[in-house]
Amino acid sequence: MFGEKYDVIVVGGGHAGAEAAAAAANMGSKTLLVTMNLQNIGQMSCNPAMGGIAKGQIVREIDALGGYSGIVSDKSAIQFKMLNKSKGPAMWSPRTQNDRMLFAEEWRLMLEGTPNVDFYQEMVSGLLVENGKIAGVKTSLGIEIKSKSVILTNGTFLNGLIHIGEKQFGGGRAGEKAATGITEQLVELGFESGRMKTGTPPRVDGRSLDYSKMSVQPGDAQPEKFSYTNTQVLQHQRDCHMTHTSALVHDLLREGFDRSPMFNGRIKSLGPRYCPSIEDKINRFADKDSHQMFVEPEGWKTVEVYVNGFSTSLPEDVQFKALRSVVGFENVKFFRPGYAIEYDYFPPTQLRHTLETKLVENLYFAGQINGTTGYEEAASQGLMAGINAHLKNNEQSPLILKRDEAYIGVLIDDLITKGTEEPYRMFTSRAEYRTLLRQDNADLRLTPLSYAIGLADEDRMKRMEEKLTKSEALVNFFKETSVLPKDINPILKEVDSAPVKQSDKMYKPFSRPNVTMDHMKTLPIVSDYITTHNLDNEVLEQAEIQIKYSGYIAKEKVNADKLHRLEAVKIPDNFDYTKLKSLSFEAREKLSKIKPVTISQASRISGVTPSDISVLLVFLGR
Amino acid sequence: MFGEKYDVIVVGGGHAGAEAAAAAANMGSKTLLVTMNLQNIGQMSCNPAMGGIAKGQIVREIDALGGYSGIVSDKSAIQFKMLNKSKGPAMWSPRTQNDRMLFAEEWRLMLEGTPNVDFYQEMVSGLLVENGKIAGVKTSLGIEIKSKSVILTNGTFLNGLIHIGEKQFGGGRAGEKAATGITEQLVELGFESGRMKTGTPPRVDGRSLDYSKMSVQPGDAQPEKFSYTNTQVLQHQRDCHMTHTSALVHDLLREGFDRSPMFNGRIKSLGPRYCPSIEDKINRFADKDSHQMFVEPEGWKTVEVYVNGFSTSLPEDVQFKALRSVVGFENVKFFRPGYAIEYDYFPPTQLRHTLETKLVENLYFAGQINGTTGYEEAASQGLMAGINAHLKNNEQSPLILKRDEAYIGVLIDDLITKGTEEPYRMFTSRAEYRTLLRQDNADLRLTPLSYAIGLADEDRMKRMEEKLTKSEALVNFFKETSVLPKDINPILKEVDSAPVKQSDKMYKPFSRPNVTMDHMKTLPIVSDYITTHNLDNEVLEQAEIQIKYSGYIAKEKVNADKLHRLEAVKIPDNFDYTKLKSLSFEAREKLSKIKPVTISQASRISGVTPSDISVLLVFLGR
Repeated sequence: MFGEKYDVIVVGGGHAGAEAAAAAANMGSKTLLVTMNLQNIGQMSCNPAMGGIAKGQIVREIDALGGYSGIVSDKSAIQFKMLNKSKGPAMWSPRTQNDRMLFAEEWRLMLEGTPNVDFYQEMVSGLLVENGKIAGVKTSLGIEIKSKSVILTNGTFLNGLIHIGEKQFGGGRAGEKAATGITEQLVELGFESGRMKTGTPPRVDGRSLDYSKMSVQPGDAQPEKFSYTNTQVLQHQRDCHMTHTSALVHDLLREGFDRSPMFNGRIKSLGPRYCPSIEDKINRFADKDSHQMFVEPEGWKTVEVYVNGFSTSLPEDVQFKALRSVVGFENVKFFRPGYAIEYDYFPPTQLRHTLETKLVENLYFAGQINGTTGYEEAASQGLMAGINAHLKNNEQSPLILKRDEAYIGVLIDDLITKGTEEPYRMFTSRAEYRTLLRQDNADLRLTPLSYAIGLADEDRMKRMEEKLTKSEALVNFFKETSVLPKDINPILKEVDSAPVKQSDKMYKPFSRPNVTMDHMKTLPIVSDYITTHNLDNEVLEQAEIQIKYSGYIAKEKVNADKLHRLEAVKIPDNFDYTKLKSLSFEAREKLSKIKPVTISQASRISGVTPSDISVLLVFLGR
Repeated sequence: MFGEKYDVIVVGGGHAGAEAAAAAANMGSKTLLVTMNLQNIGQMSCNPAMGGIAKGQIVREIDALGGYSGIVSDKSAIQFKMLNKSKGPAMWSPRTQNDRMLFAEEWRLMLEGTPNVDFYQEMVSGLLVENGKIAGVKTSLGIEIKSKSVILTNGTFLNGLIHIGEKQFGGGRAGEKAATGITEQLVELGFESGRMKTGTPPRVDGRSLDYSKMSVQPGDAQPEKFSYTNTQVLQHQRDCHMTHTSALVHDLLREGFDRSPMFNGRIKSLGPRYCPSIEDKINRFADKDSHQMFVEPEGWKTVEVYVNGFSTSLPEDVQFKALRSVVGFENVKFFRPGYAIEYDYFPPTQLRHTLETKLVENLYFAGQINGTTGYEEAASQGLMAGINAHLKNNEQSPLILKRDEAYIGVLIDDLITKGTEEPYRMFTSRAEYRTLLRQDNADLRLTPLSYAIGLADEDRMKRMEEKLTKSEALVNFFKETSVLPKDINPILKEVDSAPVKQSDKMYKPFSRPNVTMDHMKTLPIVSDYITTHNLDNEVLEQAEIQIKYSGYIAKEKVNADKLHRLEAVKIPDNFDYTKLKSLSFEAREKLSKIKPVTISQASRISGVTPSDISVLLVFLGR
């Protein structure tokens, strides 16, 4: 039936699978996306939102690399917010609320519009492996489909087990079957597997809520967007709302704790620490008698509502009774209860930086199968797996993003170097060089890399170059053009900054605290320049950041250079650590397992000490 | 969790369930729709089309009664055709191709916009029955939800078993779980259950087809629509295409016959005779070496294509090889193979005319659970079950449509009187009075009935009345206004009809064969009338039919009156047939089982002879 051999087979059609298929296909690989239900491509299994702190930066990075998540999010957005706008630009994080149905529809249509992507609906139940190398997949009907590479993006489906209170039943998501066969085969092949847990809140009927008792959470007055391409900004937006739990709600929830699979030992695996269930929050922060809840619409028109902050696997009657005690939820009706789900993952230390497994050549893992949580984390891994599967098949160098180049680089390096015992979520704090990894410059950082390997297209590259040229020219304009005291002093006065006594380059006063581009724009010479050169907000913002944060950025670059020096010290693939008795026992064990490719990576393995690194440097001739 | 008691619980969210929930709720019942997956409400499980011969009339009837199927179909249509336009108006049958995703989305939004409909996602695994009367449902989580009535619309989900070649696996649809528990409980309660079969063709990638080798099947140049409300007609349409099988294709398919579950005895239940699988067609019509295939797009933008006419449960490799030999399909790629599915149904002779079961009070069945096939058949049953559940709960007389009032009346009367051994599909030939049951007058026939019980709204009633008044006035205008020979003779000449010699009422020449409203409109006096009275096409068409087919219509009405006389002879509910030894044994057995409510219904039971009817009439005092 599948006579032809594919270059890349992607198993799964969620965020990871969809990005993987798109990337491989757009680079020229003949790609097959196999999923259990073609109608569920691009599902938002949990909250109807993309981005957020650190995650928004990842979406921008995916977009800069030529992935689709940013475009799909823009097309299906119902609200946009730039989080942390009051902090420095390294913290600015775009986030959208999305129309769940539209998001899935846009993903499906984007993929259908990608010439090299074929589709097939069935459960993949096994892998074809020949001499330690992947050869394709096998479906539940017994169909063998041949390929050079396989990318597994199974999400929560591998032996998925759903828990609600004391009840448990097999399933990959509510109302969907679990997938079987793959874990067992991988374990037989020598892979280590584990179980993780995640959860989701109840979905409720918006018609049953009293919004007048909640506070309105509108989108930004000047909404922006994710994609660097010409997607549209929102002309109108839907509001979210906020309410909170109370001591009473907590008491009602506690009544169900003895029937909770979290507390009675039935769920053994770990859930996402920073996305805890409400029972977790009550348990861990016993002194707090209120937690925020965000009431998020699931789309433009639907009445379905996502109750953010109320993830739970307590018995459904407990969920219901407690939720009815929340302000505004007095008459709430459930569409479905919250639940927890346990699923198989494979500790990601079994992967290379390309997301290829060390054990089976040309087999790649992306998304929750690697122990991560989050749509954005999944999508970015899918993208990188798709890219690297294509590059390897075509005997080209891999694309490995460094920790100072992208959050995606941090994510993958963390995963494969440190592994993870609980669902891994991205934070700005995980990035040493976050001043460099801003949402505003993901295109400047990454589009050239992607263009060079043939993924980002000409148009994307041109947009990036134009932004770069124009913003650099604007920075130079501020550096080279002088301003008179009589012109600049009113601005300085406004921000309580000491007046200047003589004419100086505009760059100087602009660099002072609280002086912004908006202030500078009031100077006729600046506004003339902007008009003449037809500069848009993105260019102005970029120039402003380059001027006002140049000190921080320069410092971070120096730090990053130190990293690069250690990155330059490669460790041979088959380096035998066991012989180095001067290494600690733990270091020998960990290094043998992880097989770091550089001294820099070795230094990030937990348990490997600076003295171990010194030993290594000696043996590697430095 | 569900503290309040519902008036009506509908189990299932397909065509039957969605109509049932909408009807009950719109009449004022507090209604709960429970389904295994809320994202699958309003799925078109098989072909992406609504209506067709006899089925199109049903959609018009559903709309006239205030159901939603016509509106949803209009909103999601991508192509419209009035079938059989060359035949008499009794045969005219509207049909749309639909955007599958949009159809489901519109259904979901229509239901969400219906104030009395609540939603809950879970599998119903049991019924609450108290003293032979329904009391609610029980879900797989063990939740009990109380209600006065329950309407089961389980489609193909009850113990669904999917077959592809030699393989079989549980499932309600491709990629979806089967439902369990209900059949077993109903059988325990004394219900007779059976198995039926249906099937679906492969879905393929439109990008892999060569349309230049097929014939184009465009929509009508002047598209109409289903709903009598103000839905919009299509401004542009998508084409379908036609190709055909060949002797080679048949030979290739025959190679798989020994592995076919249809022929090797694995599938024992009967499938829809008039919607046969391709292997059925080859088998039954061995002399034909070509069958038509319609290539139907699944939506406005998607590349997914439905291969109408190629339903099959042959092994997937056989399906694939054979389909690749069809003209235009040489390079076809599969999205998923065709399959057959077996599922539980309950012989519908166990139902009353209201679709309430005879065994359990206030329990109703609608759709495939009654052994029918087709979206329209299912939707109409759901609508009638919803209506009658509400009416009974409110101690009002049931709404039972007669055989001369609606195809829906024919459908239900056939089902409960004759039962069905194979999936029942509507045809115009099943209706004795099809000249009365036209698609153009469903509103005139049914909207007043629905308005009277509080379902069809004021606006609908007003539209119907206006159409009726205006068309009657127009008929009278033709009856009362004379036309001169010099004006009418050119028209008569055009249609090869003998010229008239003197002035006569316009009605006369208009009644002649081949003279149409379009001809009459060329007379200034007619076009003036139309303009002055602001008459739309619907009114013109109605008047034209009333004038040109008045003879047939009058004759049919006389026949229908005979039926009404027999309908008037009621048989008491507990009439004891076993005592009437003058009845044939078969008649006694069948009558005792079916319990007909009128002599008319008794006469339609197969095995009940005219002499049996005479006996009954004597005993009933006629």
